[in-house]
Amino acid sequence: MKSILEHIKSSNDLKTLSVKDLEQLAVELRKFIIDIISVKEGHLGASLGVIELTIAIHYVFNTPIDKLIWDVGHQAYGHKILTGRKNVFDTNRQFGGISGFPKMQESEYDAFGTGHSSTSISALLGMALAAQLQGKLRRQHIAVIGDASIASGMAFEGLNHAGVTNANILVVLNDNAMGIDPSVGALKKYLTNVKTGTAKEENIFECLNFNYTGPIDGHDLPALVKELERLKNIEGPKLLHVITTKGKGLQKAEENQVTYHAPGKFDKQTGELQKKTNTIEPPKFQDVFGKTLVELAVKNEKIVGITPAMPTGSSLKFMMDALPERAFDVGIAEQHAVTMAAGMATDGLVVFCNIYSTFLQRAYDQIIHDVAIQNLPVIFCLDRAGLVGEDGPTHHGVFDISYLRCIPNLIIFSPMNEIELRNIMYTAQLGLEHPIAIRYPRGRGNEVNWQVPMKKLNIGEAQLLKEGTKIAILSTGPIGNMVSELIHELDNTPAIAHYNFPFIKPLDTDLLEGILKKFDHIITLEDSSAIGGFGSGLLEFANTIGIHKIIKIFGIPDAFITHGVTEKLYIKAGIDKTSVKKYVQQFL
Amino acid sequence: MKSILEHIKSSNDLKTLSVKDLEQLAVELRKFIIDIISVKEGHLGASLGVIELTIAIHYVFNTPIDKLIWDVGHQAYGHKILTGRKNVFDTNRQFGGISGFPKMQESEYDAFGTGHSSTSISALLGMALAAQLQGKLRRQHIAVIGDASIASGMAFEGLNHAGVTNANILVVLNDNAMGIDPSVGALKKYLTNVKTGTAKEENIFECLNFNYTGPIDGHDLPALVKELERLKNIEGPKLLHVITTKGKGLQKAEENQVTYHAPGKFDKQTGELQKKTNTIEPPKFQDVFGKTLVELAVKNEKIVGITPAMPTGSSLKFMMDALPERAFDVGIAEQHAVTMAAGMATDGLVVFCNIYSTFLQRAYDQIIHDVAIQNLPVIFCLDRAGLVGEDGPTHHGVFDISYLRCIPNLIIFSPMNEIELRNIMYTAQLGLEHPIAIRYPRGRGNEVNWQVPMKKLNIGEAQLLKEGTKIAILSTGPIGNMVSELIHELDNTPAIAHYNFPFIKPLDTDLLEGILKKFDHIITLEDSSAIGGFGSGLLEFANTIGIHKIIKIFGIPDAFITHGVTEKLYIKAGIDKTSVKKYVQQFL
Repeated sequence: MKSILEHIKSSNDLKTLSVKDLEQLAVELRKFIIDIISVKEGHLGASLGVIELTIAIHYVFNTPIDKLIWDVGHQAYGHKILTGRKNVFDTNRQFGGISGFPKMQESEYDAFGTGHSSTSISALLGMALAAQLQGKLRRQHIAVIGDASIASGMAFEGLNHAGVTNANILVVLNDNAMGIDPSVGALKKYLTNVKTGTAKEENIFECLNFNYTGPIDGHDLPALVKELERLKNIEGPKLLHVITTKGKGLQKAEENQVTYHAPGKFDKQTGELQKKTNTIEPPKFQDVFGKTLVELAVKNEKIVGITPAMPTGSSLKFMMDALPERAFDVGIAEQHAVTMAAGMATDGLVVFCNIYSTFLQRAYDQIIHDVAIQNLPVIFCLDRAGLVGEDGPTHHGVFDISYLRCIPNLIIFSPMNEIELRNIMYTAQLGLEHPIAIRYPRGRGNEVNWQVPMKKLNIGEAQLLKEGTKIAILSTGPIGNMVSELIHELDNTPAIAHYNFPFIKPLDTDLLEGILKKFDHIITLEDSSAIGGFGSGLLEFANTIGIHKIIKIFGIPDAFITHGVTEKLYIKAGIDKTSVKKYVQQFL
Repeated sequence: MKSILEHIKSSNDLKTLSVKDLEQLAVELRKFIIDIISVKEGHLGASLGVIELTIAIHYVFNTPIDKLIWDVGHQAYGHKILTGRKNVFDTNRQFGGISGFPKMQESEYDAFGTGHSSTSISALLGMALAAQLQGKLRRQHIAVIGDASIASGMAFEGLNHAGVTNANILVVLNDNAMGIDPSVGALKKYLTNVKTGTAKEENIFECLNFNYTGPIDGHDLPALVKELERLKNIEGPKLLHVITTKGKGLQKAEENQVTYHAPGKFDKQTGELQKKTNTIEPPKFQDVFGKTLVELAVKNEKIVGITPAMPTGSSLKFMMDALPERAFDVGIAEQHAVTMAAGMATDGLVVFCNIYSTFLQRAYDQIIHDVAIQNLPVIFCLDRAGLVGEDGPTHHGVFDISYLRCIPNLIIFSPMNEIELRNIMYTAQLGLEHPIAIRYPRGRGNEVNWQVPMKKLNIGEAQLLKEGTKIAILSTGPIGNMVSELIHELDNTPAIAHYNFPFIKPLDTDLLEGILKKFDHIITLEDSSAIGGFGSGLLEFANTIGIHKIIKIFGIPDAFITHGVTEKLYIKAGIDKTSVKKYVQQFL
């Protein structure tokens, strides 16, 4: 059969096709995505689930004049391929390649950049109100949002406002009962009732003044096209409830939706995951968190765990399996997660609240207002701190030190390795006088033998890792391992001293004063913003005690860092080993 | 008649009363609040509206063993008076006195501190789940939340999670159709339909799996007591819908609910507001914003304004009156407000998004993810920046410089006076290449004649206000006026130079380099956290160019600052004129 996909250069090329052609296109598009993602990796299940929806929207609506927003954006691969990026799709998520998420700079078809969940309705409403004000009365506005994302507070705020406007928006609820992990919450349960017909007469979206239709089968192209055509001519806020299957079209992906959200390399025919080689690797930091938490929680019955919709990604799932009554997945609800943690802490529980660094930005007020002001000893575990790699600027956790350091009462800790992560978790659950934020990176650490007995740390204490005479390098977090390597490569030169500062706040001011007095050259290193970060904290302290030396601060510069493998991003940000070495060598 | 109130030392003393006694108590309690607030000032309408509810809850439930959370907390005066704070109630909101909000440190009856809206359900659920885990099975958990607050995203997240637990919580929806301003949004409209009986069969809260009852009359004490007694024995999440009148019992407060939210001094009999003296005062910054916006918007049709539920407080109401189709009150929905602003900006609108500094913490992720990454030139106006006075630590806007400075692309501006605020608004609406945050304080400025023609500012430019030889004082924002006074008090000593840095980012590095080279003593002054703030920015720059001098940073120290008149808080924070003078004088 002749390929249809190869002739699609833009959404315009869809218009001349018959609905029957569209069905063939769906088959081709699915195959195209599977072929490439099976070798290049990326997010799979979400895009496979919306193939028909993607085609139908671009067929019915006049993109890019009509505005289309993909909430979160994991599911936009089909959209990218149909809108001019087919030939570069194999560069997806690579350094210099296209983004794994919709991105305004990349294409006029990407009406709004996404990455974090639940932003689409607000942005869409803004566009639709702008259209009204500017007389663009025929422009259509469509957002596609999943059932996990629509249950987040921000999406509710958008719905609540939109419902009292006559803005011309269509919210397509892509209901697959999944986020990255299975959806949770009362709204999810309600949607299940709607699907099974057990919900009562009035619909929750109708309560919010939306014109609701559905649920319809999101893999039935003729039905989708027909319904979208009908909705195009209805004024005001509309919600179309579409039922899809995440991973649709690849059996293994349909059966194992969590695994195939982003499966790595796999066999494009069978879906079989590429076998891992059997070398012993250091563990992922997230697994050190997850397994250590269970180890501690078994002994300390006050411990509870909270994740906002990331049981797999945070590895809280280990505790959810082992001690289900004490581990809570609250859905995509970072604000709620933090304040619920605060509520639990008032009653004497020892709460580990695990939130990705970038998503903690969603709960910034709650950390200040509900936790820190009341000085409740909640233990925040910030996974994915620092540069996260292929997910790019929306997901890098590079502001946390700066935005947390100004909060009174809060302890900030960045472990250099797995053992230090375990030790701070052990220490924190013994009982702290303050809340603490423990930030650790995506991916694996360095210690194969990490399951060693834990020991109590002294709050605020830094360590000398290597003596030196001339240059002091002060690092916080796992970037310190780079310093160790660098010193090793310089034949353990006696000139360089290395200090590990896991506590970013409070600083070890005694040790620091000694360092500031002793060394001619001082270097700080962190994988977070150089503005207001760890290095700035040293400047502030040095200034306070009246010691003035050049402190070379290596941190993320004042720019959003793109996507790609972390090694390249470190170079881009100027915090790679070569850059530090070059700086150091001028003094050797 | 014998006073009942005078014998109430704690909620326990209510238990022996008859329901008839409770009705008399309500009369006395209302009078007590009016008597004191009429002379001492404070929030009035909210507490008057929940007198019966307050009494009924403490009568039926076993506080403080049972947990009671007042959302926002404006309405908790009756609660404070009945729970041991009657004799100190006249110190309400004063420096050294009791807080205007519930505060855990203040009383065991204040189960959770509040101030910002919509936190109560999350905190309550945390407590209820903690009770289950710890076998406190008979403990009751009650939150009182208004209809404006329950429509905020965070509250929805709490409801959505609670609905799939069997936690023993009772959410009392205090529906008076008001926040500080009238409530808005689809949920409000829906609740109106419920009240008028036009809503269809199924209830939105039932959709979320809550046991819903109501609406009932929140001023009918016997009915409240009966219903609360009934609900006490029902398991799982419950919502009681109560209809109240804000300002109940004082006719003028019922009639003018916005004004009597916090009316200042008034006649306790008639409710008549105390007449303002007729001296000409400088305007409030908020009014300069509000009136200037209208002035600009009349000429520039691209301008729109957004407020999350603060039309009166932000003075956006001027634009809502003058150009209603271009001014949006989105309800208590800071996240939505910011991302909707971003959506509008993609379509070429010039968006003024006005959010109090402290509430912008609620939309931190949206500023980064939806505005700054996409470099959309949204104009944020941050009212109530700095120390806000009597509202205290939950409301001080003292973290904004620190949490905004690390965000790439963002311009940060703090006007020294009304004219500079007007000029930056004028400049911003001409079109910027980046988003901007303009932070200005609560209260009045200094310029009586502020309505002068506006002029365009150069982005990043600072000014020399007074020449000097030895000491340079660099201020940002209205605190610079204190520096002018100080220099005046020192007979305009030629030793001191004064520079105004309205742009905190980008810094005027040319001017700054000159200052760093010229002066022996450099002082910075800001009304925001000294950690990572304006002064730190100077340290970072000085360090970058290799100039090292002591820079004395006056800013908010690393602690939460209490409530009270601003003058006292400045002294407490060590950023008052006397402290600066004392520091300066050692060099004169």
